[in-house]
Amino acid sequence: MIDLRSDTLTKPTDEMRAAMARAEVGDDVYGEDPTVQRLEERVAGLFGHEAALFMPTGSMANVLAVASLVQPGQEVLCEASAHIARAELGAHGAFTGLTMRTWIHPRGQVDLPTIRSMFAPDMGPFFVRTAAIAVENTHNFAGGAVLPLQDLRDLREFATGVGAGIHLDGARIWNAHVATATPLAEYGAVADVLAVCLSKGLGAPVGSLMVGSSDAIAEARIRRKRMGGGMRQVGILAAAGLHALDHHVERLADDHDDARLLAEACGVDPATVETNIVVVPRHDAADFVASAREAGVLVSAVGPTAVRLVTHLDVTREDAEKAASVLASI
Amino acid sequence: MIDLRSDTLTKPTDEMRAAMARAEVGDDVYGEDPTVQRLEERVAGLFGHEAALFMPTGSMANVLAVASLVQPGQEVLCEASAHIARAELGAHGAFTGLTMRTWIHPRGQVDLPTIRSMFAPDMGPFFVRTAAIAVENTHNFAGGAVLPLQDLRDLREFATGVGAGIHLDGARIWNAHVATATPLAEYGAVADVLAVCLSKGLGAPVGSLMVGSSDAIAEARIRRKRMGGGMRQVGILAAAGLHALDHHVERLADDHDDARLLAEACGVDPATVETNIVVVPRHDAADFVASAREAGVLVSAVGPTAVRLVTHLDVTREDAEKAASVLASI
Amino acid sequence: MIDLRSDTLTKPTDEMRAAMARAEVGDDVYGEDPTVQRLEERVAGLFGHEAALFMPTGSMANVLAVASLVQPGQEVLCEASAHIARAELGAHGAFTGLTMRTWIHPRGQVDLPTIRSMFAPDMGPFFVRTAAIAVENTHNFAGGAVLPLQDLRDLREFATGVGAGIHLDGARIWNAHVATATPLAEYGAVADVLAVCLSKGLGAPVGSLMVGSSDAIAEARIRRKRMGGGMRQVGILAAAGLHALDHHVERLADDHDDARLLAEACGVDPATVETNIVVVPRHDAADFVASAREAGVLVSAVGPTAVRLVTHLDVTREDAEKAASVLASI
Amino acid sequence: MIDLRSDTLTKPTDEMRAAMARAEVGDDVYGEDPTVQRLEERVAGLFGHEAALFMPTGSMANVLAVASLVQPGQEVLCEASAHIARAELGAHGAFTGLTMRTWIHPRGQVDLPTIRSMFAPDMGPFFVRTAAIAVENTHNFAGGAVLPLQDLRDLREFATGVGAGIHLDGARIWNAHVATATPLAEYGAVADVLAVCLSKGLGAPVGSLMVGSSDAIAEARIRRKRMGGGMRQVGILAAAGLHALDHHVERLADDHDDARLLAEACGVDPATVETNIVVVPRHDAADFVASAREAGVLVSAVGPTAVRLVTHLDVTREDAEKAASVLASI
Repeated sequence: MIDLRSDTLTKPTDEMRAAMARAEVGDDVYGEDPTVQRLEERVAGLFGHEAALFMPTGSMANVLAVASLVQPGQEVLCEASAHIARAELGAHGAFTGLTMRTWIHPRGQVDLPTIRSMFAPDMGPFFVRTAAIAVENTHNFAGGAVLPLQDLRDLREFATGVGAGIHLDGARIWNAHVATATPLAEYGAVADVLAVCLSKGLGAPVGSLMVGSSDAIAEARIRRKRMGGGMRQVGILAAAGLHALDHHVERLADDHDDARLLAEACGVDPATVETNIVVVPRHDAADFVASAREAGVLVSAVGPTAVRLVTHLDVTREDAEKAASVLASI
Repeated sequence: MIDLRSDTLTKPTDEMRAAMARAEVGDDVYGEDPTVQRLEERVAGLFGHEAALFMPTGSMANVLAVASLVQPGQEVLCEASAHIARAELGAHGAFTGLTMRTWIHPRGQVDLPTIRSMFAPDMGPFFVRTAAIAVENTHNFAGGAVLPLQDLRDLREFATGVGAGIHLDGARIWNAHVATATPLAEYGAVADVLAVCLSKGLGAPVGSLMVGSSDAIAEARIRRKRMGGGMRQVGILAAAGLHALDHHVERLADDHDDARLLAEACGVDPATVETNIVVVPRHDAADFVASAREAGVLVSAVGPTAVRLVTHLDVTREDAEKAASVLASI
Repeated sequence: MIDLRSDTLTKPTDEMRAAMARAEVGDDVYGEDPTVQRLEERVAGLFGHEAALFMPTGSMANVLAVASLVQPGQEVLCEASAHIARAELGAHGAFTGLTMRTWIHPRGQVDLPTIRSMFAPDMGPFFVRTAAIAVENTHNFAGGAVLPLQDLRDLREFATGVGAGIHLDGARIWNAHVATATPLAEYGAVADVLAVCLSKGLGAPVGSLMVGSSDAIAEARIRRKRMGGGMRQVGILAAAGLHALDHHVERLADDHDDARLLAEACGVDPATVETNIVVVPRHDAADFVASAREAGVLVSAVGPTAVRLVTHLDVTREDAEKAASVLASI
Repeated sequence: MIDLRSDTLTKPTDEMRAAMARAEVGDDVYGEDPTVQRLEERVAGLFGHEAALFMPTGSMANVLAVASLVQPGQEVLCEASAHIARAELGAHGAFTGLTMRTWIHPRGQVDLPTIRSMFAPDMGPFFVRTAAIAVENTHNFAGGAVLPLQDLRDLREFATGVGAGIHLDGARIWNAHVATATPLAEYGAVADVLAVCLSKGLGAPVGSLMVGSSDAIAEARIRRKRMGGGMRQVGILAAAGLHALDHHVERLADDHDDARLLAEACGVDPATVETNIVVVPRHDAADFVASAREAGVLVSAVGPTAVRLVTHLDVTREDAEKAASVLASI
């Protein structure tokens, strides 16, 4: 089976397993796990921020990052198909007590004129004030679309001017980085806090990090404990993350090539495929998924009229070519 | 001073005060207040629903009405400047644990194609499902705009087809009713639950009601207690509501006339003023407010470039004419 | 029918109704209701505190008062049958995110040695710290028991020493004041915040106040809005409260006399009845309630083996004597 | 350094690391991780329950287990120094919206007469009902005390009779099992849900499980996702748990022996030390900790007048003897 359902499905390589097996560990609740600390320092450094915090999931990283910017009774603005809106089961409301309002963009992009018109300044304690704007790069449900750096910089300028924070959901920031050769620190520079994930394209089994100021991270450490995310000898998992940063970032370019190859085979303009996700319009989505499965290729339907293909570490060029040939024939 | 800041400012009339003073009361937490019961039955009947529940505020009525449709981990869609999004301080997230996503319409209208595209069907327990769509009629921050009944019926048809509920924030539904001669029961027919307010145009000092099925109201009664809204001999306030329903509904037409008169004086096309709220674009909003105050007219700035005028029970025709003349001269 | 079920059942007198009918009002959300302000200032002054805030219910006053002392992740200690633990439906957890731990005392008293042993100092952000201790005076479910002032002062000394706050649930503080001739300011002096109720023994139809520092009240005003407690021309209700303070405080002594009279008739030692609540041990509680009802006296069962009688404004001496005779014969 | 601060500090052994390195994994959010499934089935089976769910921490397992029994507006009773009350930062209130009340026992035991007196039956939707009783075995802050099986059975009988659930916080249930030779299924039989931990005495780096009925686990799976606990190829961690169950349960007897040895050296009656935790009363707790550290032994102060020693997988008999000699001399 060639599995194109998601890049969360990657399994750790032998080298990654070996790195995990020999990881130096300690009790991270006591702040004594050297591997976790190394990972946190490294990731903070990559994005030019002061500190980072390891989390069991990207959802928790997003919730705590947004919570560092938005108080109860304030709001975060985001695009309507953002992961924080669509795929975190109400956690931002339930745990942080915030309001969310959305703009709509078919490719999940920053729409600054609309954001400007939605922005709610401080009008006293009876109105919800816009405390933060969240963006997602690459944007998952918009087919791995990249947010151009200039758009993010323009948003940063606007947000700074009005006193709002920016959260960057960078679950797949590595793909954006590789696809556009934008240094990670440039992405870091436009955001107050980020959530970045090790277990999607990078191929680590578990783990995300929140990145931000020392103060924001110190506060998030307490909230992480309350949410049940304070793990012990978690350097085992952090070691996989360090290994992934060493070995699995640059190779994302191959996933992007494979995605364009699959796009072409499915009648999608490869120029619209910026990273590792291909959304194929198919009015027979469920049938298409079933036929592909019979032919040895796993893909997923996203709603009744679209199919999603995702390339990743466990899909070789040969797999991609074989899948392309299978899917082209359906 | 002529006070055009809000229709929440109305003071009870002498007749209303007399009605309150002679109200038959009991302990409503024990379900023994006959005046509250009469009001609840009457309001439920007006909208063609089974039951209603008296609340201290419209905010609580909105929170509990939406909560009757949306579970934690589900979402409500609404227009981006809806009261439930802008003016309830995060209560829907904090107390109900829901997600909110918004469409944007300059006059707060139902945008069915966009709602259709935003609608999230049930995709399993990992995604946020659209459980309800909320509309506001008339729409406060859109300048008292009316939602046409046909649009609401189309939305009802869509929502029923996809299994979503509809909440109608009818804080000013009385204005829509009078402005369009639409029977209240027609509005009731398009919604699963409503929140309606007695203390805005109707002139009661305090009180809103949630309207819905007997089951929804029974559940809301418990949630109301948890939120601290279970009051005792509250028939005093309910009596004001009953009086307002008898005497203050039809006269809203006068407020609408007065609003058009004010619009004209301020250079706003009266045809765009559907009910009792006028939004005047003024780049000198703060100065305009100050000048009006000096001349004996209270108005409010809504943001830096707009001024809002609201007519109501305590503004006579003569007041409106005098205010029009004052404002025209600024 | 003579109704001894609760002192929440009192109906406003004609004089109180007249006071409500002529109350000067304004929009309290705008801070413009002079009667509310007069009530808030008066109640703050009675307890020697800076400020007070009118609330629709005692539950909301308790929730917001405790929230002013206890952050999420901290705890409040209280007696196990306190109203905040037993009768507010989880609001303190759900809305404030706090932890509650309890000591047990059959008469709801301050048990300082136990409190001392339970007290959890600040041991870093991984442990729940005791931020406040809550007491209830008089104690409802302990049969209207009074907390001796000296016990409260000893608790104050302890709490100050360890840096904890004190919340006094004074729903029936007026009864304690009258029963012991303790000035209200003495009770105020032992607490950081209080909740006091107008709609129990004092006979107002609706309303409680939170009392505390200006800062605590300013913050509570915002939280009150989020909870749906920000009402408009609520001076109508505040006027009832002012009238009650003028006319219904000292007469509580009559309720206390009546309670002792009822106690004697039911075989309860009158010396154990300190205020207006009598708990009668009856193994046939449900039958007793039914027999009393048939004979024209309403009482309530509290669990299967006890019956509760409460005297109040609407029970005359003659009513009490008649009820005593009825109950004695069951 | 000999580290006696906590049994959470254990580091994975070489054999455990090897088991982790070769673990078969899949995406557990998709329900495709065979090692996690094997662990969940095995642990469910050990306790005689239908299902189990892997969690990143014991805190999350406790929160979700209690939430499966207690609705918002209901309460859980527990001992006043229970982990769920003292060490989970308000999560039960904040996330579940429940009320907690406590009984007090110096050794964390089931006090059935007190529980019986505290129990609040269903008195309608205005009172908090006791939905569950939580016990902790062994009891951490009570010095690793074991709850006798008969006490748990009596509690079960009571709880069943009144319709309440039982949650067993079994973070250290393995120590109780080994210390008393009670089969795990006997502990399972007294509880509706359990939380059991792999990363304390058992020596796995990360992981706890909630154990219960299939329905309770299915619901907890959704809540786990909302709390940010839905991890991906987490079989890596589950493999450590399986290895620990194979190799690290019976050896807990050595920890218990070592604990008694340390107790004796510190003047504590070894008969009072039931498992792997020793609490030493020392009025100079802080100084004692400092002196021990200088002599190469890490212990922790629990408050100003007690010191805690915990034995575990990484403390050999030789270490224990050396530590005993060091501590005896302070």
